[in-house]
Amino acid sequence: MCPAPVVPTADRGFIIPIGGGEDRVKEMQIHRRFVELAGGENADIVVIPTASQLEETGPDYYRIFSDLGAGNVEFLPISRRVDCENPEFSEMLDRATGIFMTGGNQLRLSTILGGTLVAQKIRRQNAIGVPVAGTSAGASIMSEHMVAGGDSNSAPAVGNVSLAPGMGLTNAVIIDQHFTQRNRLGRLLTGTSYNPFLIGLGIDEDTAAFIGPDNVFEVVGSGTVTTVDASHLTHSSMWDAREGEAISLLGLRIDVMGEGCRYDLTNRQAYAPDDHASFCSLAAAEIKVD
Amino acid sequence: MCPAPVVPTADRGFIIPIGGGEDRVKEMQIHRRFVELAGGENADIVVIPTASQLEETGPDYYRIFSDLGAGNVEFLPISRRVDCENPEFSEMLDRATGIFMTGGNQLRLSTILGGTLVAQKIRRQNAIGVPVAGTSAGASIMSEHMVAGGDSNSAPAVGNVSLAPGMGLTNAVIIDQHFTQRNRLGRLLTGTSYNPFLIGLGIDEDTAAFIGPDNVFEVVGSGTVTTVDASHLTHSSMWDAREGEAISLLGLRIDVMGEGCRYDLTNRQAYAPDDHASFCSLAAAEIKVD
Repeated sequence: MCPAPVVPTADRGFIIPIGGGEDRVKEMQIHRRFVELAGGENADIVVIPTASQLEETGPDYYRIFSDLGAGNVEFLPISRRVDCENPEFSEMLDRATGIFMTGGNQLRLSTILGGTLVAQKIRRQNAIGVPVAGTSAGASIMSEHMVAGGDSNSAPAVGNVSLAPGMGLTNAVIIDQHFTQRNRLGRLLTGTSYNPFLIGLGIDEDTAAFIGPDNVFEVVGSGTVTTVDASHLTHSSMWDAREGEAISLLGLRIDVMGEGCRYDLTNRQAYAPDDHASFCSLAAAEIKVD
Repeated sequence: MCPAPVVPTADRGFIIPIGGGEDRVKEMQIHRRFVELAGGENADIVVIPTASQLEETGPDYYRIFSDLGAGNVEFLPISRRVDCENPEFSEMLDRATGIFMTGGNQLRLSTILGGTLVAQKIRRQNAIGVPVAGTSAGASIMSEHMVAGGDSNSAPAVGNVSLAPGMGLTNAVIIDQHFTQRNRLGRLLTGTSYNPFLIGLGIDEDTAAFIGPDNVFEVVGSGTVTTVDASHLTHSSMWDAREGEAISLLGLRIDVMGEGCRYDLTNRQAYAPDDHASFCSLAAAEIKVD
């Protein structure tokens, strides 16, 4: 981040949710930056293709990260909960300097990994500095509260979002992906209105939020990251609205952020790409809950 | 609990979810035990009636806790988010030796308290030893993952439970109330299957789980507490099931526990009322996540 990607006082690894459909053939800037954070030619990257049921998913990412110069790339063929207790997989995760979760179905990912040794290892490795990236479903599962599904619309509505417990790498945000492409603002507004301490992150395709150890993230990619801060709501009708009824949410704060923009999750403050002074003055901070 | 309600090595206060409809006129054993934990004649109990829209809710509990010998009882008339920033309420919570959240609508409670000073104070007071009890909606909101609504049935089903972020006094459980009376096993099974690290607590009316600082809870009241442990699932079809399709969950562990039974949330182990030896040997433990 600014200036070093990991500041000495902060030990947590980067958390990198990607909005899906990222460039895999041209500049591949998101994957390239992830490989750099993982150690470049010294990187030992473990790919978890569990969200996907396509056999080529693991090998595809093997090619991508190898082409980008990663020293070592492996993938874990986890398709059942019992696979998660495999001691070999556990050792691979202990060695990992970078972990990548592919796209697919986030509920498949949480139902298979939830409560297992693999989920525990991923959290612990991230806590001691290993960057963890995930795209599409792999992005959704990163937060404590996961968007499992919902409708496509731009207005909040009763029952238009389905939440489930995620992996809990961070409890400061709730993440949605394919955001603009699939018109998902409405369900993100509903999710954040449920409990306004959560910051909603709506991440477009080919776009990522690189969340640093100081809980400041930078936007990388061709789309935008939309943040929804409902902590200043002065009125919400969500709790007693009926099916199909219009919802009132007064006092929402939203930032639509393109490449190079930064957002401080602790202070709920967005920074423009050229706004370095204020950004560089930020100290490393804990995730703020309420 | 066993033998002292709060062991010296553990500093968190009791967390006491009540299934609603508890006896308020006869022995009132649940409220009586709460008042004792709060300090009896030295107790300073703060009631939060926000989930309810009935004006008498606060005064009703003032009478109940006063009749049971509580030294001081106050209630916070919070009906809007702005009320939560009232410094007087903050001071009342700082003085509290016991906090009680009434029934009503848990989504009203989370949308009004979420992300505010009051929610922060409740969590912090509980963390330093103050017992926090809640009935019905007030019970649902206690956990990190809250059952906001759902269907009445005994089988898990796609979309039969609606989750929202709760207050987060504990992230080890997901709580449902009026459990047997409203046939809510199905939605609790769905919720726990979403991510099996959660232990489901289905709490009947006039029944409570007194969760101690050591994360062992005891059942008090005329009904039962049903625990659902999905961490041993060997197969779950929840992630790819279609609407109306039968769900397979193989390997569920369920305990139906009447008065005096105890459950260790750390080891996911239930104890019969007379099973004192094994119970008393338990050390105080952190909440286990995964």
